[in-house]
Amino acid sequence: LDLLSQCWNECGLDPAKAAGVGITVPGMADMNSGTLLYAPFLGWRDVPVREIVSTRLSGPPVTIANDVNACALGETYFGQASSFDNVLWVTVSTGVGGGIIVNKQLYEGEYGIAGEIGHVTVEWENPRRCSCGQWGCLEAHASGTAIAERAMELMQQNGDAPLARYLREQRLPVSAASIAQAARSGVPEAIELYRSAGHYLGRAFSFAANLFNFGAVIVGGGVSLSMELWLPAAQDVFRRSVIHETNRNMPILATGLGYEAGLKGAAALAFHYRAKNGGSE
Amino acid sequence: LDLLSQCWNECGLDPAKAAGVGITVPGMADMNSGTLLYAPFLGWRDVPVREIVSTRLSGPPVTIANDVNACALGETYFGQASSFDNVLWVTVSTGVGGGIIVNKQLYEGEYGIAGEIGHVTVEWENPRRCSCGQWGCLEAHASGTAIAERAMELMQQNGDAPLARYLREQRLPVSAASIAQAARSGVPEAIELYRSAGHYLGRAFSFAANLFNFGAVIVGGGVSLSMELWLPAAQDVFRRSVIHETNRNMPILATGLGYEAGLKGAAALAFHYRAKNGGSE
Repeated sequence: LDLLSQCWNECGLDPAKAAGVGITVPGMADMNSGTLLYAPFLGWRDVPVREIVSTRLSGPPVTIANDVNACALGETYFGQASSFDNVLWVTVSTGVGGGIIVNKQLYEGEYGIAGEIGHVTVEWENPRRCSCGQWGCLEAHASGTAIAERAMELMQQNGDAPLARYLREQRLPVSAASIAQAARSGVPEAIELYRSAGHYLGRAFSFAANLFNFGAVIVGGGVSLSMELWLPAAQDVFRRSVIHETNRNMPILATGLGYEAGLKGAAALAFHYRAKNGGSE
Repeated sequence: LDLLSQCWNECGLDPAKAAGVGITVPGMADMNSGTLLYAPFLGWRDVPVREIVSTRLSGPPVTIANDVNACALGETYFGQASSFDNVLWVTVSTGVGGGIIVNKQLYEGEYGIAGEIGHVTVEWENPRRCSCGQWGCLEAHASGTAIAERAMELMQQNGDAPLARYLREQRLPVSAASIAQAARSGVPEAIELYRSAGHYLGRAFSFAANLFNFGAVIVGGGVSLSMELWLPAAQDVFRRSVIHETNRNMPILATGLGYEAGLKGAAALAFHYRAKNGGSE
């Protein structure tokens, strides 16, 4: 907050004239009360973020939201999703999270936790254990973490396989990024790991499209940077598993906002707040 | 329409004073233009239903909607869904269809065909062919038709199995209803057929709950009359496949509207139309 005040001072901006302040939090947020309910990584519970920030800034209205939901909103205001009313945002990174836009508004669900595409079951026969405790979740089969874990298993089985040799020669750690590099260099297991992740992403996208007939799916997060490695497999299963041509032709796009998606999402939150209140606050 | 006019006359009602007329159609409807786009069973395409009916009635506003969507709306206005903002209606009958309520409004999707839960893939390893041409759809594994078809296959394999004997002795045709009767009489294959249908329904409901965090799922159609036969299996897989307690505790209910669900849905359409237009039309 000191940084924000300093920033405003340096740029000659007056907080009292700001449209609003948008804050994204890495956890479950109650937008109505402005409270961070639970952030597993930080171990924070029930933090009244809006109250704390409002008191310090004593000016513009403050809005908080889950970071993935904010990305969805940012994409709607500033990105490729702006031409659609109903959009699914999916972050594929350490985990897999989703944000849903219905009629250009954040859709939060009955109890505020809509968009958990990371935990739809995509594998019933040979499921992998998910960090949530369930089996066969999308996150357990297609996140960056899952890709790296499967690579690690393959290399433990055979330390002389092409992928193990490649990573050793290039002095690379085992990560979704290094495996993508290996895939681009033609290492077969790496190509297959991304193809498999794409297959499971396509399964989950097909559930979402059949149920919600979205205008588009926009993908962000680290794994979206390797989209060319997994999109063909995703499209293949997706097109065979959705009804109606509007679903079959639904665009699956990587975000154009890059690492700024979250930042632009926070800005969108401020706009969103004004729009919801008729611009009067 | 002659019937409707006659009915109004007999009841002493004045069409000009009616709040509206709601019409449900068994197919894809464009609510904005009031057109029946396509009804596979009737073979009708692009019928301007609202125009035809409006001209004849020359009075109240006319609204049309897909019959399953109308059921969802009827349940929201008159049924158990009224205490929730976000609800999934599922008809399990000859086929499987769905209607989605978001913020107590019909959610139609980007191109008007949201709610196709009958065609989410619930079986990837041993999929059955669906009438839509795809494989492993919920409709191919859990509709009344699917239950009857699987029973038929079992009886063709073994004409002396308990289910075949039961139906022969009771002089019953092979149908979802007769198989439900057999299950209630303790015939093992019949019990298993309903258990299997419930398992697949639970899988599909889990996708919907994780993605949309619905307040409730309400089930209608003939198979909802045998809910006690399939709900335990559906609940079992559902609770193991959704994240967060609000999803795990989500009620899965049979409609209380019975065969009137469609009729009440048509009435709800008329109300809905007024509400959307601020009651001014």
